[in-house]
Amino acid sequence: MNFSTQLSKASRPLSSWQKILEWAQLRYRVRTFSKDEQIPTRSGLLYLVESGAIRLVGTSPIKAVNINDESEEPQETTEEAFLGFVSPGEPFEIVTHFCVSIQAYAHVDRTSVIWMYWHELDNWANFRGEVFEAFRYQQQRKLLWLTSLGQRRTIDRLLSFLTLLIEEYGEPKEQSYYLPYPLTHSQIGSAIGSTRVTVTRLMGKLRQQGLISIEEDNLICMPKTAADSSPESEVE
Amino acid sequence: MNFSTQLSKASRPLSSWQKILEWAQLRYRVRTFSKDEQIPTRSGLLYLVESGAIRLVGTSPIKAVNINDESEEPQETTEEAFLGFVSPGEPFEIVTHFCVSIQAYAHVDRTSVIWMYWHELDNWANFRGEVFEAFRYQQQRKLLWLTSLGQRRTIDRLLSFLTLLIEEYGEPKEQSYYLPYPLTHSQIGSAIGSTRVTVTRLMGKLRQQGLISIEEDNLICMPKTAADSSPESEVE
Repeated sequence: MNFSTQLSKASRPLSSWQKILEWAQLRYRVRTFSKDEQIPTRSGLLYLVESGAIRLVGTSPIKAVNINDESEEPQETTEEAFLGFVSPGEPFEIVTHFCVSIQAYAHVDRTSVIWMYWHELDNWANFRGEVFEAFRYQQQRKLLWLTSLGQRRTIDRLLSFLTLLIEEYGEPKEQSYYLPYPLTHSQIGSAIGSTRVTVTRLMGKLRQQGLISIEEDNLICMPKTAADSSPESEVE
Repeated sequence: MNFSTQLSKASRPLSSWQKILEWAQLRYRVRTFSKDEQIPTRSGLLYLVESGAIRLVGTSPIKAVNINDESEEPQETTEEAFLGFVSPGEPFEIVTHFCVSIQAYAHVDRTSVIWMYWHELDNWANFRGEVFEAFRYQQQRKLLWLTSLGQRRTIDRLLSFLTLLIEEYGEPKEQSYYLPYPLTHSQIGSAIGSTRVTVTRLMGKLRQQGLISIEEDNLICMPKTAADSSPESEVE
């Protein structure tokens, strides 16, 4: 897998990071959350992940009325879409929108988050620029993600979604890269417009084909050669 | 429809914009394209839309091998996903990626684009900050878009996709907002992981329900009350 270097991790400004952490601790601006705890957020504030990982989730109440001949599965009461992770050193913000609502959750235990006002960024030279660079990078990643979700076959959406996730967050281990965070089939389904049941079935197929494997603690792995070889694999 | 003000349009720095345009004209850094012409782009350059509209499109070659019992429609040879518009005053950039490829096309006739190196942004005070603000805004929009695409029913994806598009790019006209750019059913399908045929069928249903209408020149309209009332509409 010929993954590019992770822009965001590389650009993390470690020298000012220590100063920011001290600044935040002095002002009680850093707080630690347990797994799946929701981060209380306010529009207009900036958040920085200090440790652990944040899971962004969106809910949309825009629904068409029920259509009898729609041959799709019945609607559950709430539908949350998994929108990605924010890893240590990365910023995030939660904007309010007239209908779509976005929330941040601690994805793992001991996830620690710093918050500040935007103008406080100017306390550290160049840090504002680095935060903006991180958002620019995130915007680029979301374009790649949207490309993968535009595919019609669920299995194609699933495979490209996993490839992008592991490219961005994956860590090397022997002959593969693994996603360091657990992700349920239901969460994967919520990202690619599918269901837990379908994801379980298609993950089985990808495993049979050797495109992914599941390691201890249910972590998803991709062999280093998988993404390189898949463009050559014939579709029909 | 209680649409928020368009951050990006409001923040367009008109005073420096005129200077940037003159700078670009002097250096032959502005070029006009016909409808559907591809913009030749290079990684590491920054592009600004001067007039018209850019359509961003992504292609992903990551495909799983054919699965016989997959009950979905057969795969076409290429699958391009519509990723959104870039309107006048907005920046865009095209990054290279090891597998996903993103292209920019002139969506309408007489689309004019300025290009520059990133360091040239510093020619105009505050302009770098405004470009970064625009990318930050685009990143927020893409999170909303991903939320809408996480929904399982195609009709829900379609309705929230159209709502977000019209919220961002729509222009008011009497009792409705309309999307000022034409968009084919095939392009819509490519954004929401569906087909032209399905989009045509579901657009018919949305029209019957009065949630959208189609005006002259095939432009998509939404009544100003549609998005306000849809959260209340019952799903099942």
